[in-house]
Amino acid sequence: MMKTLLRIDSSPRVARSHSRVLTASFAEAWLRANAGGRAIHRDLGAAPVPVVSEEWIAAAFIDPAQQTAEQRAAIAISNELVDELVGADEVVIGAPMYNFGISASLKAWIDQIVRVGRTVDYPSNKGLVKGKKVTVISTRGWEYAPGKPWAAHDAQVPYLRQILGFLGMDDVSVVCAEGLAGPDDARRESLERAAAEVERMALG
Amino acid sequence: MMKTLLRIDSSPRVARSHSRVLTASFAEAWLRANAGGRAIHRDLGAAPVPVVSEEWIAAAFIDPAQQTAEQRAAIAISNELVDELVGADEVVIGAPMYNFGISASLKAWIDQIVRVGRTVDYPSNKGLVKGKKVTVISTRGWEYAPGKPWAAHDAQVPYLRQILGFLGMDDVSVVCAEGLAGPDDARRESLERAAAEVERMALG
Repeated sequence: MMKTLLRIDSSPRVARSHSRVLTASFAEAWLRANAGGRAIHRDLGAAPVPVVSEEWIAAAFIDPAQQTAEQRAAIAISNELVDELVGADEVVIGAPMYNFGISASLKAWIDQIVRVGRTVDYPSNKGLVKGKKVTVISTRGWEYAPGKPWAAHDAQVPYLRQILGFLGMDDVSVVCAEGLAGPDDARRESLERAAAEVERMALG
Repeated sequence: MMKTLLRIDSSPRVARSHSRVLTASFAEAWLRANAGGRAIHRDLGAAPVPVVSEEWIAAAFIDPAQQTAEQRAAIAISNELVDELVGADEVVIGAPMYNFGISASLKAWIDQIVRVGRTVDYPSNKGLVKGKKVTVISTRGWEYAPGKPWAAHDAQVPYLRQILGFLGMDDVSVVCAEGLAGPDDARRESLERAAAEVERMALG
């Protein structure tokens, strides 16, 4: 069966983005390992999705048949993003850390894809996005790994695990390329280690 | 001396926003208590600030005199938001919880105001925004207070304390109006309690 990879980039950088290089490597290795598969690219950096609006909220909580034209327009991008996620067999998310958390662009995507009846059931709060392998590629300037100086300050990876898990995605692997604001040799080493790990995940 | 309050709203809702009602009450009480003071309203819901761009990042890390016209344009809103924050004596932030965290709109604001040399020193990582009283008004559908069912899932208030603290704002009070998705009487009670607390904070 033809498999689909959803590759999500959330770095606003095009030329100088480490996370993009790593998600691109992931997609390339994944396509090698999955003959006939296809990779969809959702580029939140190049084309940010809007934040949810009052119309969006109204639309999300009523029967689609009852939506006004404005509400349908407001929720259209959300439907598209949810379909894209639900239709994918595997997901890779490039997540540069911004101010200890995920970027606003990635949060805007999350706010768009958490949808009652589509990605999470209400009132059971059971996640509906099941059976997907997810790889998060976190790039960050300082070091947040256990034992490192900023270990207690990571509000990015724990949050992503939390919200993806809430939607049913419990098979989440994380690759961290960190210390990228440090000395050249440390950065190079960190990126090389992450690249090898990414290749392993993609082929896995 | 004339004091300035910076009121920040981040709800995309206008008509049905609980956080807006509470920040408005705060501003109103604060103006009563601070004769001659003025309140500035930064409405991130009505007018979302953009996510940072590649040009923005380049601009933030070079001498302003060296910035290109594109870089100056990209960083202009950040300068404005930083000036507004630094110039305020007190800050009140309306923060509806979205998917356990802050809204993408509020994260976009944070990504705009964390600026090396303006709001945080580098390489000391000392926050430069000192001496401000900050009140965060968190509104949320479920209950996250200690002992409540969702206590472990709050990725909003801890993150706000972390990032505001990083910038030097260590005098942060939090008012939570929670359980707002619950039964009518519980919601009413929660909002009444929050309103009383907001009044106390504003007069404080």
